[in-house]
Amino acid sequence: MILDRLTRDLYAEICRIPLIDPHSHIDPRRSAARNLDDLLGYHYYTELAHSAGMSKELLGDVPPHPQPLSPPGARGDLHVSPRERVRAILEHMDRFDNTVQHSWFQEIARTFLGFRGERVTDQDCDALFDAAERVFGQANWEEQVLKKSNVEKIFLTNDFDEPLEGFDTKRYVPCLRTDDLVFHLDKPATRERLAKATGIDATDCARLRQAVGKLFEHFANKNAKACAISLPPNFVPHPVEDEALSACLSKLHEQQDDGASKAQCSAGVFWMLAEFCRDCRLPFDLMIGVNRRVYRDGVHQGQDLFDQRTSLIQYAELFNAFPEVTFPISVLTSVQNQELVSYSWIFPNVVTNGHWWYSNIPDFIERDARARLQAVPKTKQIGYYSDAYKLEFILPKYNMYRRILAKILADDFVRPGVFAERQALELGRLLLRENAMRVFSVE
Amino acid sequence: MILDRLTRDLYAEICRIPLIDPHSHIDPRRSAARNLDDLLGYHYYTELAHSAGMSKELLGDVPPHPQPLSPPGARGDLHVSPRERVRAILEHMDRFDNTVQHSWFQEIARTFLGFRGERVTDQDCDALFDAAERVFGQANWEEQVLKKSNVEKIFLTNDFDEPLEGFDTKRYVPCLRTDDLVFHLDKPATRERLAKATGIDATDCARLRQAVGKLFEHFANKNAKACAISLPPNFVPHPVEDEALSACLSKLHEQQDDGASKAQCSAGVFWMLAEFCRDCRLPFDLMIGVNRRVYRDGVHQGQDLFDQRTSLIQYAELFNAFPEVTFPISVLTSVQNQELVSYSWIFPNVVTNGHWWYSNIPDFIERDARARLQAVPKTKQIGYYSDAYKLEFILPKYNMYRRILAKILADDFVRPGVFAERQALELGRLLLRENAMRVFSVE
Amino acid sequence: MILDRLTRDLYAEICRIPLIDPHSHIDPRRSAARNLDDLLGYHYYTELAHSAGMSKELLGDVPPHPQPLSPPGARGDLHVSPRERVRAILEHMDRFDNTVQHSWFQEIARTFLGFRGERVTDQDCDALFDAAERVFGQANWEEQVLKKSNVEKIFLTNDFDEPLEGFDTKRYVPCLRTDDLVFHLDKPATRERLAKATGIDATDCARLRQAVGKLFEHFANKNAKACAISLPPNFVPHPVEDEALSACLSKLHEQQDDGASKAQCSAGVFWMLAEFCRDCRLPFDLMIGVNRRVYRDGVHQGQDLFDQRTSLIQYAELFNAFPEVTFPISVLTSVQNQELVSYSWIFPNVVTNGHWWYSNIPDFIERDARARLQAVPKTKQIGYYSDAYKLEFILPKYNMYRRILAKILADDFVRPGVFAERQALELGRLLLRENAMRVFSVE
Repeated sequence: MILDRLTRDLYAEICRIPLIDPHSHIDPRRSAARNLDDLLGYHYYTELAHSAGMSKELLGDVPPHPQPLSPPGARGDLHVSPRERVRAILEHMDRFDNTVQHSWFQEIARTFLGFRGERVTDQDCDALFDAAERVFGQANWEEQVLKKSNVEKIFLTNDFDEPLEGFDTKRYVPCLRTDDLVFHLDKPATRERLAKATGIDATDCARLRQAVGKLFEHFANKNAKACAISLPPNFVPHPVEDEALSACLSKLHEQQDDGASKAQCSAGVFWMLAEFCRDCRLPFDLMIGVNRRVYRDGVHQGQDLFDQRTSLIQYAELFNAFPEVTFPISVLTSVQNQELVSYSWIFPNVVTNGHWWYSNIPDFIERDARARLQAVPKTKQIGYYSDAYKLEFILPKYNMYRRILAKILADDFVRPGVFAERQALELGRLLLRENAMRVFSVE
Repeated sequence: MILDRLTRDLYAEICRIPLIDPHSHIDPRRSAARNLDDLLGYHYYTELAHSAGMSKELLGDVPPHPQPLSPPGARGDLHVSPRERVRAILEHMDRFDNTVQHSWFQEIARTFLGFRGERVTDQDCDALFDAAERVFGQANWEEQVLKKSNVEKIFLTNDFDEPLEGFDTKRYVPCLRTDDLVFHLDKPATRERLAKATGIDATDCARLRQAVGKLFEHFANKNAKACAISLPPNFVPHPVEDEALSACLSKLHEQQDDGASKAQCSAGVFWMLAEFCRDCRLPFDLMIGVNRRVYRDGVHQGQDLFDQRTSLIQYAELFNAFPEVTFPISVLTSVQNQELVSYSWIFPNVVTNGHWWYSNIPDFIERDARARLQAVPKTKQIGYYSDAYKLEFILPKYNMYRRILAKILADDFVRPGVFAERQALELGRLLLRENAMRVFSVE
Repeated sequence: MILDRLTRDLYAEICRIPLIDPHSHIDPRRSAARNLDDLLGYHYYTELAHSAGMSKELLGDVPPHPQPLSPPGARGDLHVSPRERVRAILEHMDRFDNTVQHSWFQEIARTFLGFRGERVTDQDCDALFDAAERVFGQANWEEQVLKKSNVEKIFLTNDFDEPLEGFDTKRYVPCLRTDDLVFHLDKPATRERLAKATGIDATDCARLRQAVGKLFEHFANKNAKACAISLPPNFVPHPVEDEALSACLSKLHEQQDDGASKAQCSAGVFWMLAEFCRDCRLPFDLMIGVNRRVYRDGVHQGQDLFDQRTSLIQYAELFNAFPEVTFPISVLTSVQNQELVSYSWIFPNVVTNGHWWYSNIPDFIERDARARLQAVPKTKQIGYYSDAYKLEFILPKYNMYRRILAKILADDFVRPGVFAERQALELGRLLLRENAMRVFSVE
């Protein structure tokens, strides 16, 4: 509910801009939810419920050997039915009904499931679960959600060995996610996947380059528009000589990693990816600042945190070395936003990208977006991405952002006379659509 | 003065919630002020006056050998009378009458001393001093202040060797403060105090464990509800093997500290305290980020500052190792608030705690509280504590917090339709009372 | 445009306070702009245009060997005329017309050049360029700008070997800038300049002290009121023994720098400067946090960025060692503002100073100024400085600050009843004028 008229008008107009969502975890073959468990199984709900006191066993979420990067949806299932899992979360929801994550669910229930009560409680479990099965089971549900959400294109997060087949890559735009290549090449399983995907056993630098080249070729052929990676706070990119990289790869293959080899290998592969981004004219999305598995007994995907002590100065050599590559940058903390503002203001190839994860809450979004709008060229800002696993989350998350954007446009631009309303809406259009189209070369 | 009606109504209602104040430095046998010097001797006033140009000599505050953790109230007295000390501070107060700390005193003068002027100046010194002697001298003054402040329980900060006798531990709840044990066991005086308090000479790990066990037993018997410690920004908890800890203790006893032994000993004792918290089911209050004696010539208690470069990642192993222990966390800087928000959102045993010291000013409180309310389960937030040395400060400090809280509840919850007023007030009740009661198991 | 009446009134009154601008890069012999290129050649415009996609060649800005500290205005000129350079920037300006830097230019065009359109576009290039030549060519233009900007004194940034002659040092107050002495004494050119300016070949510590003493004497004779330096984030001041400093100087002179010598030399010279500040009773302006030449191919003066991981704890020894020296501190990031607030609140000799460079945008100014006003004695805050290269920028930059200041005074002081309007204006007077006069001893 927006009380101020100008802001409300701007919001209404902004909502009419068809979205380009430049980062999500949507599975294009199961893009919409099939039941309520698909929504409340989202890690935001499981981790908040668990943090507020819910046992993980109620989720069936006790994998014997949790993997740092297990595929979305993977959960050790101790015979907990979807309905019971939903009930468990709803029973704990009143402990976190103050949070913005809760408000997303509330908006989904209202918009898509016809919920009319003041707020969802565990009393609503069966009625909502049944409503969801009915509604989500409609043949054209995916189309309905996309239309209601006014989203035109959605970028995916694809493992390097995905076939990228069986879906419309104009709507669901592939994106090569490279965490495994950079940080898990020491694992035989990763190397086997790479070998299987490319037919090349990447035992030295030359062969690795050949293999990675095949991946880029494959992705480019499938309309991929970005390469992406998430990075720990202490990562410092630097080039590695071919010979040195070969030596490290050899050590990894012989399982003789001494830690240093793995780190050196990460640096070398990362730099190689930047070279391919340059040669294939792909932007390289950097999502900076996450430490994996900090809370080791956390729920699936609810284990990662961070160290605020990180700096974009770590990336200065990269930005200098690849002037032809555009780097859309996500930072995990609002603390680092001023660095992002300043680096985007100075480096032509650095672009601000969305409001990521722990910074994707209204207070941080407002501060961060406001500073960016005051000091970064408007053509260099990608306003927002949903990071969603299911289509239904695009609407409430973007609405949260659009409300804030409307407020900033009203308070900082229209009212002080900096922009007329028309110009403010053009700025909104850049942030929500046109900058993403230009930066990622989508039409 | 709150101009907006909804906020004013919420504030009025919030003020009716009886407070649990979960952290103070109140001396339960001299809880209320006896004269104006007891109030203006608070380090906030002496340090601001000194920073603004007042010589320390006017305070009589030139101890020949200042101690890092000397007891509250200890000041080298160069024959400066309480009235003259008050006069000196009042004479410099117009240099910092813009500060929120000044507004606390102004509110005390108005609420408790009948001051009616526009603002206190040095002209008011004698009248106020006399009024204070008269008012504070009333037989039931302590009861009057408690009633007017609407505070039910106040947590103390007790040295490990305090007898904890002569006061009502249901009202003044003991709390075991452990800075000395963790950081000053290298000092013979600390070891002697420990030996005297427990009858055990803690020359090795086993004996130390026995001694600390006695302290916990003593405190538990006296209704203690928390263990607490303040920590420097570079502290990284980790377990220490018994044998290694014994070796370090031995070196300390033999005065052969090589620096490393002291640090190792700190880590080992800290970890041992966490084990006792687990076994005795006591929350462990961590107050993170303070460097002691940075400004070495500062006034008493006005010497400590910080290094913003610290991270909760340093505590990840602790939080993982002690899932049964609740850690109410105070961070010294607003910069670290996003870490606190995120760690509390993920770790079930991490709870946000108040607005500490250099972050206890309205701008930081508002930012920090807003982010917490948007992303941390509402049951995991302890809204505020007074940190007061005298009862009279509870009222103005809590009023400052309650005004901000009322504003956030109005702007972020009630007006946008997230919560009805009733629900917003229930949230206020959790923050000001119920979460503290549940987390610290007080009835 | 300020919509709220109280704020507007406060703003109007604040604007009547004659300014002391305590930091600029004005050349007193060419203080006002001569043409539009002098304004749009300001690095804020060239770097934003370049960041938004403009080739540096359009600026004629491709110096073959860019120097880290080349004098203002030095640009490799590839035969690009001032008018064409202006046109190039205006053609790219619609890419950054959202920024506050753009709004400064817009305000200059409106105030000084009679521009009446909605916003400046490349269509206005010739008309504006011609208007500027006409207006700026008036004989008394400098006086007109000073009067319209209501500025009384402007501090300069003077290289150590400047003669400081040919201008009114009461109006344009000299300030000894010492970056070269501290960070570039390894360069023969710097040593030659020092030798030439002082007649002393500073080959050892004693001779260096003699030479620096001559510089201070010269500057003091020319009415200099401050010593100033910008410092990288990792700089940690500490004293260096005379003998050790001599050894380092000797290595630098013999071109046998091993890195360590240079760093040691920087520390030693910096400490020596603090000693001279003490002896000559000059404040020492520290501008903390900039890394030079991070974006190596950036436009002139558009190459510097930072590492947010820095702390004022690095300066604790300095503040302790020189209680007689006032240190007006600028921090490059808003992240570090809480440290600045806290250190100024505790250390008598630490004073907050303006809103520097990457923090000189409204959102950061508002946050930073608000926190300072809530917790730092009002006599210890220097509100703002222009950092301008041309007089015309003083007005729009100060107006930006004054609007924010008026808003904070209205919202945080007058409306809540903390200050009457009269007192709020007195506070404004301290921030804009009187504190600078007192701290820097100007009359």
